[in-house]
Amino acid sequence: MEVDVADSHKELARRLESGELTSALEWLHAIPRHDWSLVLSRLSPDERGELLTAVDPELGAELLEELPDVHQISVIEDLAAPTAAAILDQLPSDLQGDLIGELDDDDAQRILGHMTPEDASTALTLSRYEDDEAGGLMITEMLRYAERQTVASVIDDLRVHAEEYRDFEIQYSYVVDQKGALVGVLRMRDLLLAPHGTTLDRLMIRDPLFVRAETSIEELGEIFDEHSYLGVPVVDAQQRPLGVVLRRAVDDAWAEQQDAALLKLQGIVGGEELRSMPLMTRSSRRLAWLSINIVLNLLAASIIAMFQETLSTVIALAVFLPIISDMSGCSGNQAVAVSMRELSLGLVRPTELLRVWLKEISVGLLNGIALGAMIGAVAWAWQGMPMLGVVVAIALALNTLVAVSIGGLVPLLLRRWNLDPAVASGPILTTITDMCGFFWVLGLATLFLDYLKPATG
Amino acid sequence: MEVDVADSHKELARRLESGELTSALEWLHAIPRHDWSLVLSRLSPDERGELLTAVDPELGAELLEELPDVHQISVIEDLAAPTAAAILDQLPSDLQGDLIGELDDDDAQRILGHMTPEDASTALTLSRYEDDEAGGLMITEMLRYAERQTVASVIDDLRVHAEEYRDFEIQYSYVVDQKGALVGVLRMRDLLLAPHGTTLDRLMIRDPLFVRAETSIEELGEIFDEHSYLGVPVVDAQQRPLGVVLRRAVDDAWAEQQDAALLKLQGIVGGEELRSMPLMTRSSRRLAWLSINIVLNLLAASIIAMFQETLSTVIALAVFLPIISDMSGCSGNQAVAVSMRELSLGLVRPTELLRVWLKEISVGLLNGIALGAMIGAVAWAWQGMPMLGVVVAIALALNTLVAVSIGGLVPLLLRRWNLDPAVASGPILTTITDMCGFFWVLGLATLFLDYLKPATG
Repeated sequence: MEVDVADSHKELARRLESGELTSALEWLHAIPRHDWSLVLSRLSPDERGELLTAVDPELGAELLEELPDVHQISVIEDLAAPTAAAILDQLPSDLQGDLIGELDDDDAQRILGHMTPEDASTALTLSRYEDDEAGGLMITEMLRYAERQTVASVIDDLRVHAEEYRDFEIQYSYVVDQKGALVGVLRMRDLLLAPHGTTLDRLMIRDPLFVRAETSIEELGEIFDEHSYLGVPVVDAQQRPLGVVLRRAVDDAWAEQQDAALLKLQGIVGGEELRSMPLMTRSSRRLAWLSINIVLNLLAASIIAMFQETLSTVIALAVFLPIISDMSGCSGNQAVAVSMRELSLGLVRPTELLRVWLKEISVGLLNGIALGAMIGAVAWAWQGMPMLGVVVAIALALNTLVAVSIGGLVPLLLRRWNLDPAVASGPILTTITDMCGFFWVLGLATLFLDYLKPATG
Repeated sequence: MEVDVADSHKELARRLESGELTSALEWLHAIPRHDWSLVLSRLSPDERGELLTAVDPELGAELLEELPDVHQISVIEDLAAPTAAAILDQLPSDLQGDLIGELDDDDAQRILGHMTPEDASTALTLSRYEDDEAGGLMITEMLRYAERQTVASVIDDLRVHAEEYRDFEIQYSYVVDQKGALVGVLRMRDLLLAPHGTTLDRLMIRDPLFVRAETSIEELGEIFDEHSYLGVPVVDAQQRPLGVVLRRAVDDAWAEQQDAALLKLQGIVGGEELRSMPLMTRSSRRLAWLSINIVLNLLAASIIAMFQETLSTVIALAVFLPIISDMSGCSGNQAVAVSMRELSLGLVRPTELLRVWLKEISVGLLNGIALGAMIGAVAWAWQGMPMLGVVVAIALALNTLVAVSIGGLVPLLLRRWNLDPAVASGPILTTITDMCGFFWVLGLATLFLDYLKPATG
């Protein structure tokens, strides 16, 4: 069965190409819904465009939402403007804004011209906010009523606009005064329990919490941590409601940041990479990162070049250089992980260098001695040379201290300097610990060279 | 100001110890809410217990929820059973179940005996489910009504129990038949718009989606991806409602899994580590992981030991061994990251080894040639020995191919074998690429040894 799904994009493309739209849709709907993203991402850009042009805009919007983000923009760019506009009209306002914001100005103008004027103006407004502030995360679909309205008139409005409000996430309605400023929040259940003649100003929760469009995702996260609200209203300078940031939007944005951090830590730094992207994009982005690393590696290895004489006397040392480098990397990465975790949980401040350092060197001392003893014993046993064991043991123990110190502190420092710990911690850690590690081993060996010469030398 | 917050746990502890509860609470409430977790996590276990015993259970529950998960269990264990029970009674049912499930059986029984019988029985039931299935994620706070009830009687019930339902997340009510089996779902707004005499069976959405307590978090994730519901009911074998899994609970559980993956990738594999945990726990967990790695490193380095003769002839090779090892690790990690990302987005199946391998070797070929050329040029220029350049260039190019192949395929294979790609991908990748890398460099050098001897040799 799995071969079927993996190949089903080919069958879908074949049916589309031969103009059998009905049979193509049959095929699509026979594919389990959770495989749609896999199938759609493997269609060629042309095939994706064909599919979205052929189907009605509502299904088009559903399909677009299934595509990974990186493919959404390119497919919108390739569609004819009226088709793209019809599909965008079916999307929730926050996604409209995101997509319009990512397009070239020309493309955006072309498509906005074909959207319903109301949606176009909302999308344009939303596209101007950053992705990580309330304005970029909010939806504009919200219910607002005047404070002098009665419960009965609200129920009437809900009944009349039932179809329009169908997809709204109505947990709350918002109450505004005569100037349009937000003055209260209504919960559905309060409406349900109140007599129909009650005016909203007697029912609403007054002085509601609200945020400005510029409120950062960090502040929003704190608000949703402290309160169990499902959404928070966003207001302008005159306190007029602009939209609602849903808890879900904030959670999703956080999850995306975490995913991006995970990718960056592993060297995918130029943005999302999927294997359905063009080869040259994938190769060149990875290479950009690797090129920086090779330069840093050469820098670190230059330490070895300085000690060639010692190395040629005690060639066994060459075996331990990569081990010291790799083990220090492991120890340092553990410290990086704990620092990044504590930063993201708010359990440490970027300024608390001393606290982190003290906590790390105590662990580093214990583990450095343990690791040093292990590798020292192996070195001694292998070459029957006690001093070789002593040299690599001391070198690894010392370098474990260096590694946990750098690993613990670098994420804090990068955060203080507003740099991204996920991108830069790794290379900084590796370069410094490699240089130190090579220096300890070879420096100590040079110092005790007389005790390290092979018996036959 | 930042020094204040960092030290404010000391002041809090001082006021607690001298019995000034009111002034301790004043101090606590003066600390910004988002710093509570930082402050609480730095109290000693005794101080935490004192604080939770001194405050009323409602505040106790709030404080407990602010603590990082790893500290929650230990503080509950240390509290007197009646205090612990009173605090647990204030928590939502899913958290009650989680905590009871984590306790020793003895502790759990002691505490359950002091809880309200209803909460105790619910908590005990919930504690038996796994954390990653619907039963472990659901809350039991849900509204259920009989299908023959009228809207008016539901509104009456909501009014009578307004206080009890205050903290419920009521988006839906659930409708059951005479046998108690789930037959429909009611949205709040449908209640609001319906005439009061309507019976629920005429208003409800029939054949509602439901899951079983054993439904996995993966399936729940797919359900919430496909539908915009805020919650899904969980039923037993007779289709009687047991609780509701909220979208939020599933999102949170996913985020936790991602966070855990990030930690594991960096070598924190024995569970969460925070610097407020005891030194020996932190040290020994890290060391367990490092010990596995040092053995693997020794294994890889044994390849170098086999070629000591070649190395002592061309000592410059020793400079390039750590570079080849590190650069191959970088290339391989990029491939690991993309595979893990595609797996988690559902864009690749664990069985599609050929597809992934073809995509990776094309990138690996381009980047391998580029990296090989760079390092080859440096080697040639440095030692003025063309063949040294050729050897390291070919070795790095070949090993880049090995690294992206291993990096791309290992996460898929681990997933197929139900092993955790986040834990095992790194060590497997590093060990194999190191062994191959050392072998290419030293093997090729041995082959072309005549061209590599120093001019003066």
